[in-house]
Amino acid sequence: MPLIEAARFGIEPNSEKDAIPALRAALTACRDTNASALAFEGGTYHFWPDRAFEKYAFISNNDEGLKRVAFLLRGKHHFRIDGRGAQFIFHGPMTPFLVEECRDLRIENLSIDYTRPFHSEGRILAVREDSVDLAIPEDYPFDIRNGVLVFVADIRHPSVPTTVKSGEILYPYGHLLAYDPERRETAYMVYDKYGVQSGIAAESIGPRQVRIQVPGVNASPGDTLVFAAAHRNDPGFVISKSSDIRLRNVRIHHVGGMGVIAQRSANISLDHLIVAPPNESRVISATADATHFTNCTGRIEIRDCIFENQMDDASNIHGLYGQVTRILGPNKLEVRLVHPQQAGLTFIEAGTRLEFSDHRTLEGFGECVVESVEYLNKEYSIVTTTEMLPASVLPRTVVADADANTAEVIIENCVIRNNRARGILLGSRGKMRITGNTFHTPGAALLFEGDANHWFEQAGVRDVVIRNNTFDNCNYGVWGDACIEVRSGIAEASRVASRYNRNITIEENVFRVFGTHPLVAIYSVSGLTFRKNSVELTHLYPPRKNDGHGWLDSSNCDRIQWEDPVEICGKRSLPDAHKVLVPVAEA
Amino acid sequence: MPLIEAARFGIEPNSEKDAIPALRAALTACRDTNASALAFEGGTYHFWPDRAFEKYAFISNNDEGLKRVAFLLRGKHHFRIDGRGAQFIFHGPMTPFLVEECRDLRIENLSIDYTRPFHSEGRILAVREDSVDLAIPEDYPFDIRNGVLVFVADIRHPSVPTTVKSGEILYPYGHLLAYDPERRETAYMVYDKYGVQSGIAAESIGPRQVRIQVPGVNASPGDTLVFAAAHRNDPGFVISKSSDIRLRNVRIHHVGGMGVIAQRSANISLDHLIVAPPNESRVISATADATHFTNCTGRIEIRDCIFENQMDDASNIHGLYGQVTRILGPNKLEVRLVHPQQAGLTFIEAGTRLEFSDHRTLEGFGECVVESVEYLNKEYSIVTTTEMLPASVLPRTVVADADANTAEVIIENCVIRNNRARGILLGSRGKMRITGNTFHTPGAALLFEGDANHWFEQAGVRDVVIRNNTFDNCNYGVWGDACIEVRSGIAEASRVASRYNRNITIEENVFRVFGTHPLVAIYSVSGLTFRKNSVELTHLYPPRKNDGHGWLDSSNCDRIQWEDPVEICGKRSLPDAHKVLVPVAEA
Repeated sequence: MPLIEAARFGIEPNSEKDAIPALRAALTACRDTNASALAFEGGTYHFWPDRAFEKYAFISNNDEGLKRVAFLLRGKHHFRIDGRGAQFIFHGPMTPFLVEECRDLRIENLSIDYTRPFHSEGRILAVREDSVDLAIPEDYPFDIRNGVLVFVADIRHPSVPTTVKSGEILYPYGHLLAYDPERRETAYMVYDKYGVQSGIAAESIGPRQVRIQVPGVNASPGDTLVFAAAHRNDPGFVISKSSDIRLRNVRIHHVGGMGVIAQRSANISLDHLIVAPPNESRVISATADATHFTNCTGRIEIRDCIFENQMDDASNIHGLYGQVTRILGPNKLEVRLVHPQQAGLTFIEAGTRLEFSDHRTLEGFGECVVESVEYLNKEYSIVTTTEMLPASVLPRTVVADADANTAEVIIENCVIRNNRARGILLGSRGKMRITGNTFHTPGAALLFEGDANHWFEQAGVRDVVIRNNTFDNCNYGVWGDACIEVRSGIAEASRVASRYNRNITIEENVFRVFGTHPLVAIYSVSGLTFRKNSVELTHLYPPRKNDGHGWLDSSNCDRIQWEDPVEICGKRSLPDAHKVLVPVAEA
Repeated sequence: MPLIEAARFGIEPNSEKDAIPALRAALTACRDTNASALAFEGGTYHFWPDRAFEKYAFISNNDEGLKRVAFLLRGKHHFRIDGRGAQFIFHGPMTPFLVEECRDLRIENLSIDYTRPFHSEGRILAVREDSVDLAIPEDYPFDIRNGVLVFVADIRHPSVPTTVKSGEILYPYGHLLAYDPERRETAYMVYDKYGVQSGIAAESIGPRQVRIQVPGVNASPGDTLVFAAAHRNDPGFVISKSSDIRLRNVRIHHVGGMGVIAQRSANISLDHLIVAPPNESRVISATADATHFTNCTGRIEIRDCIFENQMDDASNIHGLYGQVTRILGPNKLEVRLVHPQQAGLTFIEAGTRLEFSDHRTLEGFGECVVESVEYLNKEYSIVTTTEMLPASVLPRTVVADADANTAEVIIENCVIRNNRARGILLGSRGKMRITGNTFHTPGAALLFEGDANHWFEQAGVRDVVIRNNTFDNCNYGVWGDACIEVRSGIAEASRVASRYNRNITIEENVFRVFGTHPLVAIYSVSGLTFRKNSVELTHLYPPRKNDGHGWLDSSNCDRIQWEDPVEICGKRSLPDAHKVLVPVAEA
């Protein structure tokens, strides 16, 4: 079980050459010698997609496809990759790490970045009803082609153009969002501009200056306008059907998708994982969630991490709902994975214990064990159960794996700030402990979601403790109305009948707020205890529109124990949010 | 070995419901009972992609991807599908037939069409230097989104939109080309407008009328402007690693790619195959070549077929060149499949007899047998040979499978007309017999190509007879300068040394021409006999710019026997080209 030095295979730091061929040789040697570890030296390494591994991957909440992968780790047990401070730079579309069917794997002491980000940014010069003027920095090469704004690569892929294929790599955009360049966060109360996937008409108005013909952009001159990546093709660390996977002291400066996405895996530990832009010139780190966990079991531990400036939530821990589309017999039904970014995640197998839930209340009403499955394609399956289906199983009923999404979750001492949208989406059925974290999120810091009509993410917590966290001026954006919030997809009329989320304790937290909007907004919850919390008023932002309705906004709940927060004033002298947190030291 | 009636499985003609679930059941029954045939009744059948088979396919000269497939036929032997006049209508992106590792298969008596074509068409109202005004028929639904012209579906895919996926199917365009709506052919001497894949800025100028901001469109008011499909995702019949495959009495009114593409297969017969638009409202049939054959062996027979209005050549019969990218040892090299639409066609396997050719002359200079191959990904392989590599193997040398692309080819009594570009690209190393066909193509009717720098299609004929064909006013477009032409990718300086194409006999043909441009334009040919041909002058089009240089344009050739064609005048009274040919009877 030797440790193999990457340098032995010619993988040299600070070389401009493509490390992929030597890396493939090193990984083969690791396999052949049953090595315990592969170690790099500190310094910079460059990776191109050309000769990288290739794999068609279905990745929850990211985009499926045939990926080029630098580190393709399959069936590896008891293995460690130690970067020793290495900086990995990727050139073009490729997935840094794809881990499949591994056990006891550790990846540590390295950072990830790309030469050309998957998103683009521009400085807003003017905003009109139907157009926006921008100055686009050189970091984001672009063209105007037939009157359409197109973001292009820093270098051309070495493909030969023909009349049918240009070989060119483009960087398409999917939506727009404005950022405050001083605070390096989403501008106050801005909302996303969607529907620009087919491009935007544009004209040049000066050197690297363009006018884009797009109505309804919610932004101000001076803001940074982000052209969000249209696809999530290249997440940073994909962990699939694996167990005991640990990331330690890893920095993700950029990826074209989520930072870490674990699916159908057990025992994931993230320790000193930092998701953050490499420097002040970029306002975006990962182009989607920093971390995400789908149908995971065992234990998820996230400790001492920083998640900032990613284009979506810091974390989302949930299961999968398949939709019943046809009843084919007393013990036979057709199930569809409706959300395109869940297609191919065939979580229903012979032996799976299926939990049925009503799509309106999200409440479970029965279980069956799967006898066999016929996969029609990545979306549709024909499922036969060992017993009769419950009579109330109907089209639009949803099914989940009753034994998945049960991970015990510990999120401790993390900093979550300046990203788009929310902090953590709490959806595991296992115990969840959220302690000692600091949140500065434009939307809800902690959200209870789950939905059976739109995102098809199974949630519905059973035992959550939220203790000793600082909610530091959250809710300066449109993605939520309270620091801690329920937004489960329960139809208005069904909320009275549903108790989808249960047993939530919120204690000993500090809420720094710039207005008197609710701290907690919930419905269809059974069991909420709010005690020993304090609240401090700041004036960091203008007040929200929902100010003055009390700290708690609840409906259709029971077993609520509410103890109003103690109002403090400068007793804990926290500086303003955008300066509060430890600066990200260089790797 | 029973014949199974599709109706037994509820596949009923003229029903509006999705035939896919019942078709899957019928195909399973065919497998389980070892049926000899599956037969339909005449009438219309509808197919949706939702529950169709799924397969990731690499398809030569089409686009790879995870396809939905109606008829997925794998490993079938001695089987027949008889449509008995059935009309198959496809709703949305899907591949009608994918045949893999089959032997002795017959598909007959059916037609194929789509509710919404993959391309779009519009009538030109005005053409300016920088813009074109169009009226777009209702058959081609479109939107202008943020000032960009977007072609949309006739129906929405039943997917649920989220902030990350709209679930909408779009119909992107890759280039523009003008058609003469009277003659239903490419307008005289127009050329393609490329570089519009990222969209075109547009504004509405009336009901279903748009002005598109695109410079340099070569067209006239009244022309039909075709927005060529950007991708070739859904060819009609994909035949892969199969043998003894016959299509008989099949009509392809439309497909999103090539009509028939056979790769690494043997003994393909196309008999009464018609590729043609369903009616006068569309000027395009298949969005790419009508037929195409890559690395095929045995015999290719194409008899009594009509190929008209497809968006590319009628046929192209060629091999594959891989490019040597690195020499890794005395018997080890790295090979790349450079053309993106050849990636994944891993034609190099243990035992393959590799032929090396110079990328400038295209002449072969040695052979080696493959001992083993390591596939890095769909593009790159590491190849080890049993013997030492020839010394002249260098980076940019190309390799082909010396035993593939050897099919004997018979193309007889076909009509090829009104498509974009050329007629038949003749590139098989086997005997080729082209007899009794009628060509009315805007480019060369018969082309000898092959190239090692751009398309990487192995060609270089050895024995071709072109007899008793009518070349009826070809060359009214820009895709060639003569009826029969060499355009092999041989560098100018290398032509003197190359004899890439050999032994071509052209006899007893009639050339109807509207000017005195060459009938035959060749270089680097050894052995050409031109005899007993006749030529008739017409006035169907204005003369070409290369008029008056003689009937033969040749350089760097040897063994040429040229007998000037006999000039005839009205002796064979052929009517004008666009009216000459038998109308396409309805299926």
